[in-house]
Amino acid sequence: MAPELNRSATMDPRVVELQKEAAARDDVIGLAGGLPADELLPRAGLARTLADVTSREGALQYGWAEGTEQLRRWIAARLAARGAHVDCERVIVTAGAQQALAITARVLTAARSDYSIAVGDATYAAAIDAFTRAGARVVRDGGAARYVIHGVSNPHGVELVDRAAVLATSGPLIVDEAYSELRFDGRTPRPLLADAPDRVWHVGTISKTIAPGLRVGWLIPPAADHDTALEHKAAADLQTSSVSQAAVARLVATVDYDAMLEQARRAYAERAAALCEALHRAALGLAFREPEGGFSIWIETECTGDDLALLRTCLDAGVMVDPGSAFRPEPADHIALRASYSNATPDRLGEAARRLAKVLFAPRRTA
Amino acid sequence: MAPELNRSATMDPRVVELQKEAAARDDVIGLAGGLPADELLPRAGLARTLADVTSREGALQYGWAEGTEQLRRWIAARLAARGAHVDCERVIVTAGAQQALAITARVLTAARSDYSIAVGDATYAAAIDAFTRAGARVVRDGGAARYVIHGVSNPHGVELVDRAAVLATSGPLIVDEAYSELRFDGRTPRPLLADAPDRVWHVGTISKTIAPGLRVGWLIPPAADHDTALEHKAAADLQTSSVSQAAVARLVATVDYDAMLEQARRAYAERAAALCEALHRAALGLAFREPEGGFSIWIETECTGDDLALLRTCLDAGVMVDPGSAFRPEPADHIALRASYSNATPDRLGEAARRLAKVLFAPRRTA
Repeated sequence: MAPELNRSATMDPRVVELQKEAAARDDVIGLAGGLPADELLPRAGLARTLADVTSREGALQYGWAEGTEQLRRWIAARLAARGAHVDCERVIVTAGAQQALAITARVLTAARSDYSIAVGDATYAAAIDAFTRAGARVVRDGGAARYVIHGVSNPHGVELVDRAAVLATSGPLIVDEAYSELRFDGRTPRPLLADAPDRVWHVGTISKTIAPGLRVGWLIPPAADHDTALEHKAAADLQTSSVSQAAVARLVATVDYDAMLEQARRAYAERAAALCEALHRAALGLAFREPEGGFSIWIETECTGDDLALLRTCLDAGVMVDPGSAFRPEPADHIALRASYSNATPDRLGEAARRLAKVLFAPRRTA
Repeated sequence: MAPELNRSATMDPRVVELQKEAAARDDVIGLAGGLPADELLPRAGLARTLADVTSREGALQYGWAEGTEQLRRWIAARLAARGAHVDCERVIVTAGAQQALAITARVLTAARSDYSIAVGDATYAAAIDAFTRAGARVVRDGGAARYVIHGVSNPHGVELVDRAAVLATSGPLIVDEAYSELRFDGRTPRPLLADAPDRVWHVGTISKTIAPGLRVGWLIPPAADHDTALEHKAAADLQTSSVSQAAVARLVATVDYDAMLEQARRAYAERAAALCEALHRAALGLAFREPEGGFSIWIETECTGDDLALLRTCLDAGVMVDPGSAFRPEPADHIALRASYSNATPDRLGEAARRLAKVLFAPRRTA
């Protein structure tokens, strides 16, 4: 039984309404949502692949809860190449990383009261929702379990995982690798799964590199928790889309996935640089770190009050970002924003920075 | 916090192992799983549709949690044609009917202890899992909420809903329409949603008519519960596959869906007749009802004991069915089986009936 909630980090209807207005307006530059660049997604390849796999016998049928062996083998092989050797039988294909996080939280909180998950000062907003909905208390530090985004933290855009320190802790480690292969320097870290296999809940996805709209991710629970996690998966939605799974497995068998990743890293690095340089020019002294990878920067402002009002001001100025409060486990004194450069071209990012600077350095700053 | 569970209705690893062995063996006739007929699924149409929608800009991106407006409008329009007028804003597109059931149970059980859902003597096995995992107690009669499969009950194959009696109850009604449009007589019932809109949780799917492997279904919660249900959907997996949603919306806009349903009804009626006639010939006095629609018959045997052993015997005899215990909220004296005629051709069904009769009328019957 989950406690009744007063808030959802990502589904505040007032924020969603602003996001929809922004998405519908051509004059608004969208830095919200953390979308991959549409032009980097392999649309043509997937169109062919989807047509190909769908026309085969059985392609549209039900499948097993854990996902197809072909896809699980690819996931296991890529992890093995990075030093984490897991049998593909341990992989559970999920509806994106989000479902992997939700299942993990359900298993961890089952039959435990007042279970807490530490996430740091700010983290992926929808992870907070998944954990909270499962009945967990999401805290900044000191939880029974710990959630980390390995390689590049979201929303910070930089690596925040201190490998030795994390491995020195005890308790379950929920390791989200959504951006691990999208560090601009290409230094994909060795999976924590390799060094703490009995307590890491490994979470991965193709949403940032192939297509979020296919909803394909994966969960590798500790071996002792595999069967329970799989029961949760089956109870949640029976299985991940057979069509999506077949399309991804076929695509990665026919393209050079590492070359795709390299191209994506270069494109996102260029966009990150465009946004950061323009922000530095337009808003001297604005507090954010140069991203090491991923899709976003995390801007800590000197503004106080409700970030919804600031979001409305942003929208009026023709730029949309994500409200920092959605990413924080606890309220903070100052407003923060997540700005994603991932799905805007460099020239648009320059203009977005100028609009954002106007908002952040307008009357509010002196308020 | 969900109570710790000792059983999963559908994921007993011993049953799953037998199911996988059966699926891998060409000599075994599969009456398990409740799969739609592969040859009735619009493979060629979906192959074209998937390629078409995927090649469009934005097709692979993230979408809103509630699903695409195009698909929600189609769902609402079909319900309106049957007498249930709901605004498409109330529709939540889910990963199959299963996720709709899981979300419903999560919302109903949130902040309530010892919540019970009545399901009758037997019901869709994975619904029992979804409800139990959400922390509900699944009971035969007298629950705080009631779950019904409208039009054709699964596993019984006949309508068990007494409309007046159900509408005379109070409390939430979870109405699963998975088979409502697959009654052989084509008499799709008026949705219960039309008559009890403030307490019906309406669940639908295209899994039985278009493709289970796309994972597209829907939930229409009571208006007062819509926002909470949508927050649960977002926390569970962010959104249903953009690609699946676009493909379904486009397919139904370009084919005659009612003609597809009519063809499916005729084919399943023919298969139902083939299995039932062969069973009557081969196993006089076997207790099952002639199906009125759907995919399955529910066979109540005189055998006692563990239905897993009976399943093993079936497999050895070259026919696979589903174990009745998975469909029952409470243990029963005698073993029951669900036999699905939906994904086997009439000649194979005749042979399946002879094999099944041998098992059921062999030494065990006199034991």
